Amino acid sequence: MRGQHVSMDLDLTKDVYPSRMDTDPQWLPRQDPVVYSEWSSESPIRKEQVEFYQKNGYLFLESFFAEEELQGYQEEARRLQESSRGLKADEIIREPGGDEVRSIFAVHRSQPVFRELSQHPRLLAIIEFLLGSSVYIHQSRINYKPGFTGKEFYWHSDFETWHVEDGMPRMRALSCSIALEDNYAFNGPLMVLPGSQHIFVPCIGQTPDDHYKESLRKQQYGVPDHKSLTEMVKRFGIDTPVGPAGSILLFDCNIMHGSNSNITPYPRSNIFMVYNSVENKVVQPYSGQNPRPEFIATRQGI
Amino acid sequence: MRGQHVSMDLDLTKDVYPSRMDTDPQWLPRQDPVVYSEWSSESPIRKEQVEFYQKNGYLFLESFFAEEELQGYQEEARRLQESSRGLKADEIIREPGGDEVRSIFAVHRSQPVFRELSQHPRLLAIIEFLLGSSVYIHQSRINYKPGFTGKEFYWHSDFETWHVEDGMPRMRALSCSIALEDNYAFNGPLMVLPGSQHIFVPCIGQTPDDHYKESLRKQQYGVPDHKSLTEMVKRFGIDTPVGPAGSILLFDCNIMHGSNSNITPYPRSNIFMVYNSVENKVVQPYSGQNPRPEFIATRQGI
Repeated sequence: MRGQHVSMDLDLTKDVYPSRMDTDPQWLPRQDPVVYSEWSSESPIRKEQVEFYQKNGYLFLESFFAEEELQGYQEEARRLQESSRGLKADEIIREPGGDEVRSIFAVHRSQPVFRELSQHPRLLAIIEFLLGSSVYIHQSRINYKPGFTGKEFYWHSDFETWHVEDGMPRMRALSCSIALEDNYAFNGPLMVLPGSQHIFVPCIGQTPDDHYKESLRKQQYGVPDHKSLTEMVKRFGIDTPVGPAGSILLFDCNIMHGSNSNITPYPRSNIFMVYNSVENKVVQPYSGQNPRPEFIATRQGI
Repeated sequence: MRGQHVSMDLDLTKDVYPSRMDTDPQWLPRQDPVVYSEWSSESPIRKEQVEFYQKNGYLFLESFFAEEELQGYQEEARRLQESSRGLKADEIIREPGGDEVRSIFAVHRSQPVFRELSQHPRLLAIIEFLLGSSVYIHQSRINYKPGFTGKEFYWHSDFETWHVEDGMPRMRALSCSIALEDNYAFNGPLMVLPGSQHIFVPCIGQTPDDHYKESLRKQQYGVPDHKSLTEMVKRFGIDTPVGPAGSILLFDCNIMHGSNSNITPYPRSNIFMVYNSVENKVVQPYSGQNPRPEFIATRQGI
């Protein structure tokens, strides 16, 4: 079901997306395709969907999973949350200033249900089409985003982090977020700036060592400046794709996104999987620092 | 332009809405009318609007102010924000963990523009109709809710605080929020539980002395428990009335409301005025504690 490969010359030693080096960062145009396959009538999504993804950098597929599939994922996620409550493990991230479980990482490795989900044939076909190659999971996690106390996630491009801190060479990856609950405009849904995937916004300042321990709880580095964000929102606007549980959101690795807090009683948990092209495997981090641990960014056996 | 007065027997020494006394609070039905006048063709709002307010506890009036009126308020609010930046005064409240001005209180006293606004004839006619008497300003403020870092305001009934901490006897007051910027679903708009004004939800726990200093920055006491909120949201749902700058939201003193954070670049500043019936003037706080200061709750010259 793989699409036609759009060929690219890659010199992985060259850092084509420098970031966190300057105090007055200049925007860079994207050097890579957004969609890596040519559409044909055999493709796993419609032509308008490909065009929408190319233009806006995301695709929302309402009620993608069948009811019984969804129920299986929901139950497993709840079971995992319960069993993680008392546990101490690197993979378990808690809310700032609380004991509530915020995220659990590497669930595609630890849980057979989620390993199978990560290879769901209908899902994989779309992702391999968009990235034009075989893919592997760069990162997976469940975000619990609890009701009442769900904290915000500040604006960021995932790629900026994956490039600088994990050594992902080029923009040939995407995220898949699976809604485990109904999403509303008022319970802190993901906000994206449609079209922002075409621009790389370098961030300001150096990254402290072991910064990931804090950044998973609260973003402080690897975030764009206010001026850039204001300009981007003016240019691209803000979309908040929401829908019922079982919907999925596919979004490009470089789209600017974030979410507000959630004081409603409705949790907004989701399963989050990052697919990277096998032709874009991670190298040494471009920051020159140590790579982040395996549970955040797969390096072994890829 | 005043509506017909619905008469009420008031024994102000009796606390008909006890709160912060119990660890297992029971909901109480509202003892007071929501609308204090009978509608007639002379009334300053339409019959459906009165019915909507009676049922839902709020009324959103899109683009209520003329463009030039609005501009005057916007300019004055900005000027005041600038001039308050370096100042130290009780009336100026800052964001938690920052120097950004969050709110400025008692602007209807300090600024002639806002004094005049508080007596805007077309606005006052509606408010006097709803409360069925002459009114006075119990509290006024500008909320700046800045972009990028606007923090959430947790769920609360204003009346609960005004009753316990200020000694407001009965539910015969309302708030008027004037949008100084366009409001969107994604920049932390006010969320209300329509219909919740019919129920008084007592809060848990005693109030510390001088609690107001913290509560204006971050709510910790005088907030309802998770179980009550979950039940209320299930029963009433959540409305987020939004619209262009110059729109106003009138909402009953006892409606449950709150707002999420705002990471977008769009600030969401508004002018906020609380009108209380002259037949409902504040007495000693029902907590038995000292009243909050004059700039938060008018006691003198009413």
